[in-house]
Amino acid sequence: MKSKILIITILLLGTITVSAQRRILNVPELPGYVTLKCDFHAHTVFSDGNVWPTMRIGEAWRDGLDAISITDHIEYQPHKQYIPTDHSAAWKIAGPTASNYNIILVKGTEITRSMPPGHLNALFITEPDSLVRDDFMKVIEAAVAQGAFIQWNHPGWKSQQPDGIPRMYPVHEELIAKGWLHGIEYYNDVEYYPLVMDMCRDNKLAPMGNSDIHAVISEEFPATQYSHRPMTLVFAKDRTHDSLKEAMFARRTAVWYGDNIAAMEEIAAPLFKSVISAGVPFKDDGKNIWFELSNISDITMTLSGGPEGAPATLTVPAQGMIVVRADRKYLSQPLTYNVDNIITGSNSVLRTEIAPARK
Amino acid sequence: MKSKILIITILLLGTITVSAQRRILNVPELPGYVTLKCDFHAHTVFSDGNVWPTMRIGEAWRDGLDAISITDHIEYQPHKQYIPTDHSAAWKIAGPTASNYNIILVKGTEITRSMPPGHLNALFITEPDSLVRDDFMKVIEAAVAQGAFIQWNHPGWKSQQPDGIPRMYPVHEELIAKGWLHGIEYYNDVEYYPLVMDMCRDNKLAPMGNSDIHAVISEEFPATQYSHRPMTLVFAKDRTHDSLKEAMFARRTAVWYGDNIAAMEEIAAPLFKSVISAGVPFKDDGKNIWFELSNISDITMTLSGGPEGAPATLTVPAQGMIVVRADRKYLSQPLTYNVDNIITGSNSVLRTEIAPARK
Amino acid sequence: MKSKILIITILLLGTITVSAQRRILNVPELPGYVTLKCDFHAHTVFSDGNVWPTMRIGEAWRDGLDAISITDHIEYQPHKQYIPTDHSAAWKIAGPTASNYNIILVKGTEITRSMPPGHLNALFITEPDSLVRDDFMKVIEAAVAQGAFIQWNHPGWKSQQPDGIPRMYPVHEELIAKGWLHGIEYYNDVEYYPLVMDMCRDNKLAPMGNSDIHAVISEEFPATQYSHRPMTLVFAKDRTHDSLKEAMFARRTAVWYGDNIAAMEEIAAPLFKSVISAGVPFKDDGKNIWFELSNISDITMTLSGGPEGAPATLTVPAQGMIVVRADRKYLSQPLTYNVDNIITGSNSVLRTEIAPARK
Amino acid sequence: MKSKILIITILLLGTITVSAQRRILNVPELPGYVTLKCDFHAHTVFSDGNVWPTMRIGEAWRDGLDAISITDHIEYQPHKQYIPTDHSAAWKIAGPTASNYNIILVKGTEITRSMPPGHLNALFITEPDSLVRDDFMKVIEAAVAQGAFIQWNHPGWKSQQPDGIPRMYPVHEELIAKGWLHGIEYYNDVEYYPLVMDMCRDNKLAPMGNSDIHAVISEEFPATQYSHRPMTLVFAKDRTHDSLKEAMFARRTAVWYGDNIAAMEEIAAPLFKSVISAGVPFKDDGKNIWFELSNISDITMTLSGGPEGAPATLTVPAQGMIVVRADRKYLSQPLTYNVDNIITGSNSVLRTEIAPARK
Repeated sequence: MKSKILIITILLLGTITVSAQRRILNVPELPGYVTLKCDFHAHTVFSDGNVWPTMRIGEAWRDGLDAISITDHIEYQPHKQYIPTDHSAAWKIAGPTASNYNIILVKGTEITRSMPPGHLNALFITEPDSLVRDDFMKVIEAAVAQGAFIQWNHPGWKSQQPDGIPRMYPVHEELIAKGWLHGIEYYNDVEYYPLVMDMCRDNKLAPMGNSDIHAVISEEFPATQYSHRPMTLVFAKDRTHDSLKEAMFARRTAVWYGDNIAAMEEIAAPLFKSVISAGVPFKDDGKNIWFELSNISDITMTLSGGPEGAPATLTVPAQGMIVVRADRKYLSQPLTYNVDNIITGSNSVLRTEIAPARK
Repeated sequence: MKSKILIITILLLGTITVSAQRRILNVPELPGYVTLKCDFHAHTVFSDGNVWPTMRIGEAWRDGLDAISITDHIEYQPHKQYIPTDHSAAWKIAGPTASNYNIILVKGTEITRSMPPGHLNALFITEPDSLVRDDFMKVIEAAVAQGAFIQWNHPGWKSQQPDGIPRMYPVHEELIAKGWLHGIEYYNDVEYYPLVMDMCRDNKLAPMGNSDIHAVISEEFPATQYSHRPMTLVFAKDRTHDSLKEAMFARRTAVWYGDNIAAMEEIAAPLFKSVISAGVPFKDDGKNIWFELSNISDITMTLSGGPEGAPATLTVPAQGMIVVRADRKYLSQPLTYNVDNIITGSNSVLRTEIAPARK
Repeated sequence: MKSKILIITILLLGTITVSAQRRILNVPELPGYVTLKCDFHAHTVFSDGNVWPTMRIGEAWRDGLDAISITDHIEYQPHKQYIPTDHSAAWKIAGPTASNYNIILVKGTEITRSMPPGHLNALFITEPDSLVRDDFMKVIEAAVAQGAFIQWNHPGWKSQQPDGIPRMYPVHEELIAKGWLHGIEYYNDVEYYPLVMDMCRDNKLAPMGNSDIHAVISEEFPATQYSHRPMTLVFAKDRTHDSLKEAMFARRTAVWYGDNIAAMEEIAAPLFKSVISAGVPFKDDGKNIWFELSNISDITMTLSGGPEGAPATLTVPAQGMIVVRADRKYLSQPLTYNVDNIITGSNSVLRTEIAPARK
Repeated sequence: MKSKILIITILLLGTITVSAQRRILNVPELPGYVTLKCDFHAHTVFSDGNVWPTMRIGEAWRDGLDAISITDHIEYQPHKQYIPTDHSAAWKIAGPTASNYNIILVKGTEITRSMPPGHLNALFITEPDSLVRDDFMKVIEAAVAQGAFIQWNHPGWKSQQPDGIPRMYPVHEELIAKGWLHGIEYYNDVEYYPLVMDMCRDNKLAPMGNSDIHAVISEEFPATQYSHRPMTLVFAKDRTHDSLKEAMFARRTAVWYGDNIAAMEEIAAPLFKSVISAGVPFKDDGKNIWFELSNISDITMTLSGGPEGAPATLTVPAQGMIVVRADRKYLSQPLTYNVDNIITGSNSVLRTEIAPARK
């Protein structure tokens, strides 16, 4: 009886249920910024999704997200036999709910073409109808004129790129040359594309990670298997729509999926430092020292390539702690490790230093 | 990337994903019949639900159900600004998927009036448009003419019955007198109405239990809290649409919610016997005997009121076993217990006998 | 094969497995102190427990505790047919492991008498054999002479106090008069004794909460039912054995069990403030304001008795957040609530004020 | 307070708690036999284990086992500084509890030598002290004289066999020639040794699987990771000590670990048939048929190598069901599959046939 007419009416009006509960995500930080947890790719019944738009807001709230974009397809409306095309409908329906849940709703759409150019999301647009035209470059031009952040979606999706390897076509190079491409999905749904990290570094683009959800988040990423949906972490000056947009164009993003972070080196390094800390050695037997290594984030950190006289590998669990026993020479020099779960390129992970604290 | 265009197209065509997994529910049986697990109350975006109709079939398949009815409101279409009214749309969309998943899809609708008469589901109808009329009795007459099973929904719903106590109004008595009412919801969503058991017994109606789902089953009844959605067990001759209908009109139903079963006495008694069995005493110290009591169902059984010289209460866990120690006089006479989780009336539970097996 | 001879040998020597993982508990804090998580009541095979002493250290480490005491019975050795009495054995065996895991091991024992006086733990003792004597007062005198903290255990345990109501006998009053009683268990195993809070306040004693574990922590307090074992939070200047002892005699303790905290008012108030914070109102419709209330601890906070124009009750989930909608007059005056899960007396809970943050 | 003196006393006397709950394991069957679930390798504080013997009975009961053996080391007593050697102590202590829980307690011990011969369990012995002697062959002779079933333990354990590959030494061949070796552990703790299946087949020995538990079953095999401990399934005429023994000498065993079964071909084939069944085709489009495949066991079945016109692989979940779509020619001929999780040799799995049911 919970969701009968009266209550549904309330939802349509966008009034919140004050008892709704939101989880807090403990994620790495970039000094001077707040970490916004975002998903910039989602569908509803207004294109080929299976849920009503307000559901996307409830999911985002419960999941601890700060911002989402609903990005129904422009060119693909398989339900139109039953639901007339309306490119603004999802935002109009979801908007009041987003406002009451303090969720930043980014107006977006998915420009849906065969490869090349493939699928691209235009985020922060205002007039979707202006994007309904055949000429792809004209569509992007119209979106950019509205201030859009253009994200190339799932560039290695096998339905469009059968070998699964993302590659730049001339159209993408043209977009980049014009400053009309701003980010690429490194992660989409349950797939990732390692080469995207290099593409982003070489072309000064933001790596992005999104759910591309069509059905239900909690079923696609069940808690028994996933601690969270894939998402883009954006390091913004404030938790506002405009700060979010500024940060994205400034490429202050990281991708969080499973227990992994993908980010450019200059962002990855401080992220690690913000969650891992070493204690003062609590035991010293003249040969070895013992100290605690703790992790305040929800992301288990996996280190390898440890130095001589120290563990070769270390797994520091999410919101957990381990004891490290190491040669006492590490009282005066740091231990170097690879952070295998912080990806900085198609073939590289973060290299970091750990040192026991001084008394 | 899982649910992109190609896959969505497949779903629309009703083609199954052969890897989809269905759970088997271990439920009580009535000798000579198969137990069909059914949910006769569900909504979609075509009235005030939040999901596309095919979602209901996927949920039913995974949940181990045999039959569902999609019962969108006739009189209440809050999405009609975006989705034009079509009372057959949900069945047309869900039908092919149901067929491929071997789910019996019962065509239904919810006749949605203020109390009295309140809300009633017409199940097994064929022409929903004929039910769009003001005169309530004419609506029911039209439904019955189509062979409908009429179910009175949530008679104690506080939005319509502020004290929460279901009561018969003249309109209901008229329906019964005409043979136009066949079942009443004892359980709806997360509520139950004890008096419905008496109403059903006194008027020869079938007790029903349904989810009345508007959003997502796995979120409304999360596995961490619920082992299954509320449902109606129907004891049918076969797992077919027609056998299901025959059984419902013959009132061979029980309601399963949480670890409880609500059923008329004559059905409740054999149900218990079908899942609980006692072993041969494995120890006899001259004063007491020890024997095992096992439960092959997914429903924990809770017994109380035990006789002198035996445990006052017994909890036999789902798919579990306990040891009972009792006076050895029970080698020759049964132990009597109340089965607190098998409800037979507003104020009664099943009374049963347990006897250790003979060697 | 994991725990074969070689590995067991290592455990006996107290060498740690560096891969062992410890969880971090997010608990309330008292400004100026560190919160030590402690369990001062546990048994091993050396009295009537079921495990080897090193197991208690491994459990404490994994559970995120800082200190434990192993407190085998002095007067009760049911295994002595197989294990000769040795009141120091458990500490000798567990000590090296504790040292390698950075766990503070408090030497303790349980003085085990019928009621009155019942059972009392002597903590921080050094010579247990000196406590083996008939005269109870002499035993306590000897313990106190060793610097012991005397804790009265489970004063409402029905095996000794059939009505379950803890009461002071002359012997307890004598102990208090002499300064020989320092704390009382408000919580033991799965029981709590409300009146203990008043006894502690009236007599300037520390409320304590402990597991009194005999078997296995993870089975007695399974993760599916309990987020943690019952424990005493001690607010110490440092994470050292001596600071812990100082804090206990200074009565800076709180009891954490389930989602509840029991503490004297002066401690309870800052604890709440350390974990709950209100955000700046993000919506103001001229009549109401909307703001977020978040909880960084692992303890769900349950508020009731809310003021007019605000929710009557609020549940702020562990590591979660809710939205509060309240009359905009609360922009300039705080909202008052009872914190139902922070117990300050047998009949009182914490009363607190919440105010939305200023921009 | 649950496990205080009175209750512990009760446990020592072997009186059961009637509320203890046992889970029922749904495992494959061999027609004409009952499937006994057994663990023939476990330790207690009386050698190098960490728990009191009664704990092993409680674990077995809750885990749904029918029989266990406590097999403390003869030659290795690391706790003897605190616990005097007593090779019968564990049985004497656990026996009354086993009797009250209807658990078959097999008296066993682990003969603990360096490789060769390594470690061997003597099961069904009566006089352990007679096994305390230097000459290994004399020890085995004495055990066999008591009717022992001799099991070679973890033959590929790297502490004794550094390359992890089990191999027969002359001493093992001598045991086999004399009829003094009856089974080999294919699975121990978390390791398995593929070649053991061939050794068993070639020498007519029983494959065995055991936990070799030293600490706590629920922590070594946590429910979040394991659905059950590793065990030996024994197909006995009855659930009695003597039937169990007869079945073991007759080599009617299978090993169950994770979702895998290891058994000789002649046993493996009927096991699969006892849990997997195919339904009548419920759809036939003239080209393909659709039918259900269900699995009533707790073991997910994984099939591969499917024939042309049918799915290449099938995963039939534990207590679950899938739909199979196949060419309609399979109405008249069975589909052949490999059952990847039923191992019949070091390099072979069960090959089986599946046919949709006839109406």
